[in-house]
Amino acid sequence: MNKKYVIGLDYGTLSGRAVLVDCSDGRVITSAVKNYEHAVMDQCLPGGEALVGADWALQYPQDYLDVLQETVQKVVASGGVAAEDIIGIGLDFTSCTMLPVDEKGEPLCAQERFKSEPHAYVKLWKHHGGQPQADRISALLEKRGEINNIQYGGKISSELLLPKILQIVEEAPDVYEAADQILEAGDWLTQKLTGGKKRSGNLAGYKAMWTPETGYPSKDFLKELSPMLENLAEDKLGSDIALAGEAAGYLTGEWADRLGLKAGIPVAAAIIDSHAGMPGSGVGSPEHMMMVVGTSSVMLALSKQGYAKNGVVSGVKAAILPDNFALESGLAAVGDMFGWFVDNAVPEEYAKKAASEGMNLHTYLSKKAEKLVPGANGLVALDWWNGNKTPYVDGRLSGALVGCRLSTKPEEIYRALIEATAFGTRKILDLFTEAGADIQMIIASGGIAEKNPLLMQIYSDVLNREIMVSDTDQTAALGSAMYASVAAKEEKGGYDTIGEAVSCMAHLKDLVYRPDADRVERYNKLYEVYCELVDMFDPKKCSVMSKLHELRQG
Amino acid sequence: MNKKYVIGLDYGTLSGRAVLVDCSDGRVITSAVKNYEHAVMDQCLPGGEALVGADWALQYPQDYLDVLQETVQKVVASGGVAAEDIIGIGLDFTSCTMLPVDEKGEPLCAQERFKSEPHAYVKLWKHHGGQPQADRISALLEKRGEINNIQYGGKISSELLLPKILQIVEEAPDVYEAADQILEAGDWLTQKLTGGKKRSGNLAGYKAMWTPETGYPSKDFLKELSPMLENLAEDKLGSDIALAGEAAGYLTGEWADRLGLKAGIPVAAAIIDSHAGMPGSGVGSPEHMMMVVGTSSVMLALSKQGYAKNGVVSGVKAAILPDNFALESGLAAVGDMFGWFVDNAVPEEYAKKAASEGMNLHTYLSKKAEKLVPGANGLVALDWWNGNKTPYVDGRLSGALVGCRLSTKPEEIYRALIEATAFGTRKILDLFTEAGADIQMIIASGGIAEKNPLLMQIYSDVLNREIMVSDTDQTAALGSAMYASVAAKEEKGGYDTIGEAVSCMAHLKDLVYRPDADRVERYNKLYEVYCELVDMFDPKKCSVMSKLHELRQG
Repeated sequence: MNKKYVIGLDYGTLSGRAVLVDCSDGRVITSAVKNYEHAVMDQCLPGGEALVGADWALQYPQDYLDVLQETVQKVVASGGVAAEDIIGIGLDFTSCTMLPVDEKGEPLCAQERFKSEPHAYVKLWKHHGGQPQADRISALLEKRGEINNIQYGGKISSELLLPKILQIVEEAPDVYEAADQILEAGDWLTQKLTGGKKRSGNLAGYKAMWTPETGYPSKDFLKELSPMLENLAEDKLGSDIALAGEAAGYLTGEWADRLGLKAGIPVAAAIIDSHAGMPGSGVGSPEHMMMVVGTSSVMLALSKQGYAKNGVVSGVKAAILPDNFALESGLAAVGDMFGWFVDNAVPEEYAKKAASEGMNLHTYLSKKAEKLVPGANGLVALDWWNGNKTPYVDGRLSGALVGCRLSTKPEEIYRALIEATAFGTRKILDLFTEAGADIQMIIASGGIAEKNPLLMQIYSDVLNREIMVSDTDQTAALGSAMYASVAAKEEKGGYDTIGEAVSCMAHLKDLVYRPDADRVERYNKLYEVYCELVDMFDPKKCSVMSKLHELRQG
Repeated sequence: MNKKYVIGLDYGTLSGRAVLVDCSDGRVITSAVKNYEHAVMDQCLPGGEALVGADWALQYPQDYLDVLQETVQKVVASGGVAAEDIIGIGLDFTSCTMLPVDEKGEPLCAQERFKSEPHAYVKLWKHHGGQPQADRISALLEKRGEINNIQYGGKISSELLLPKILQIVEEAPDVYEAADQILEAGDWLTQKLTGGKKRSGNLAGYKAMWTPETGYPSKDFLKELSPMLENLAEDKLGSDIALAGEAAGYLTGEWADRLGLKAGIPVAAAIIDSHAGMPGSGVGSPEHMMMVVGTSSVMLALSKQGYAKNGVVSGVKAAILPDNFALESGLAAVGDMFGWFVDNAVPEEYAKKAASEGMNLHTYLSKKAEKLVPGANGLVALDWWNGNKTPYVDGRLSGALVGCRLSTKPEEIYRALIEATAFGTRKILDLFTEAGADIQMIIASGGIAEKNPLLMQIYSDVLNREIMVSDTDQTAALGSAMYASVAAKEEKGGYDTIGEAVSCMAHLKDLVYRPDADRVERYNKLYEVYCELVDMFDPKKCSVMSKLHELRQG
């Protein structure tokens, strides 16, 4: 039998990527990436209509199809393998990134009458315009005594599906009425590719309050939330669910032609981008925590029991790996925050010196920051530049920097921001431990894990754990390819379980970051300070950030 | 009789200035300014020896004499008036800026054996190295039930004289032993000029815990603080005190020759630089508050009763103007903080655009910031970049910025920093009101009051008061000249009271900043948030900043 290959697609916040992977050893033969033409729309629609909310983040669905066609064609053309040997496609997507579509699956924003209607477009995962709706959903669950349902986590994030739908219902009911389906962009793509209506259990379980046992939230609850929502599940969602590694369907002839693939190969159910990174980075044991550090960060670890509070959710069993719940949390801004800092808060003098030394500003600041002793900057920050997930699940919360003095230097603030994300990660690790995980080592991936050894060493010192880095910078795409190989099954040249795919296809770099005892001790002290600060800004006790949010809104 | 003139000298943090002033109308004939050659020594001594403490700020006393000689010679030479018509000299100085001297009045740092001893140099007002000593003095006063003595203010600032002396006693007892006098730099200069040993009641009353009734702190208290200090008052300080407007003595022949002046003219007792600004800016009524906005800021207002808590001190009666206590407080960093921001936190892109529009960065940021609606930046800051005076009197406290988001722009932070200083000023205004002042209007002066209309308008809106600006940018030097005219008396062509000098010699600009009702209302809301934040970081309840301070120290 010829060698067999799979295609993994990874849809991120600003671009999408395809990889062509050797099923036998996980080797990436070739890859292609394409930016979304409309990127993130947070100021206006494609026609120029201004968005009213400060917390909006929309996307343009055609951009996803353009990525699909162009990147897959490229890897097929440049991979040098026969179409017959490509046995499956898998894809991951940011989530909850959702859109309303008509009965043909066409986005409502493509209809002339909805071109100027923001609610007809894709709401990106980080669209926080539905925060008031999320608050009301939380309040209703609280009232009904259902807030502590294991899956919901004590508070409903505005990044979930239901707040986004409720915002549509309240602000653009005609869009809601006109929608045949409201679905995750990941599901939209697998439906396009297969011509079917299956949805991903991973997406539904983590973002749509669905469980295999109880399905979507009850009619009773939805009706109380809004009469229009009573039949949400039957009318707009879908109950034909494929779990991770199962096929959402099989490639249509039309799309096979467009992509240069064989019709009928399995398309694996879509999966959350960060979740695909779990097998993709080689995490398959309860002793390992996956940590993806990019624009934001995600932590995933396995646990035998479910857990959901303080922004940590375990979703539904087997949503990522069989037999386990997967504890998930993350920071809403990591690389985004460092990028903000470099773009907005580093002086010309540093920019000039960095340029004269042939470095970018991140490298230049890191060189200066790595000489600092933990705590010597006298600073501590709350990494909430994009709201807070853990422990408060509140998009209205915002970042803080404490300890500024006239002698404070840019590299000291840069280090403080890195440290803040490390402390935020430690809070999550603490909660994972409370939730039953027993994490001995961390497997990191993502752009920043690759490019910023200072950050990795700080994380190792703050978390007091060894950290290894995945051997690929495309863990999510590789993970999606692994799920494709599982959807294809061993008989076609793939694998019957994701565990087998991980053990054959995932690899780590030789590099190990090890904690230093002195720095661990200093960071233990600084972490106490961070925790005091986190506690001070508990929105239950402190109204500073919520009032700032109100004032900012107008 | 020919027109008569006086010379006012104003010693700031980085430079000293002399003005030659027409006694009849306060017109500044000419002025001269000179930077201190050694500026502020916060890293090392002139010989290169590194300073150990992060909070040190020293100066080099010869720099003051160089300023004296060069600037006075210049104004005399360029003023075109006869030496015979110059009838007095007055000077103001930062405070408490102090030094140890030998029996000839020479600074101990000039002695070979003390060249490498930091404690033999001038400790500048903002030397905070004696914070532990200040804390111990506060604790001892607390223990003795004397902490609420009206003059002390509930807490001893590390900027006062006694903590600075106690630091010398504890860290360099040989310097203390070798000192014939320990005195304010302002007193050191008037002693040089007059050959006498008088000290200023203004300096002693505000910074050395001296009162006309009780003198310096008791032997009993000083002994309990440190056995070496028992005889501090008799041995190292001086009890021959001249109040504001009185002569500290008369110009010696030697200095008359060096300066080109007539021997025997009165040298007015030295006065705190900000206090000189009170008459200098035209404040002579209880309805007016003086506000000097420069690197730091000072607020002064008159009250019939004494007051001392939350960092507001009224010192001793008649220390500035007869019959009144003068309530004093201020912010430890204003222009310094904006300067820090521009130097450390404004991106290259802004620097380039500012340059291409021919603006400095302050002007460029102000142009952008003035378009923002109050509260729309979603930010609030604590202006404690140089510690906090009011309400906590704690140099270990540090600055904070809350409300950062990925969309936060540099001009939004710039405005938040300005607003933070306005809110800090409002806290002081509130306390002055509590202390019995009834302030209807604010008279501003200082470099920033002159140059930054955005800041002035924000202050007017936040304080809900009209603000007028002094017609001179040299209020302190002019005030010192006024005190010289009072020391000279009417018979010599001066004035018998400072009130008469103010009414003849001080002038305001036509410009009035008026509060806008909408902005006042929005700022009332934001001020509530600021107050909540100030309260959260009360060092009695919150250890975040004190722990950061400890970690920063090592």
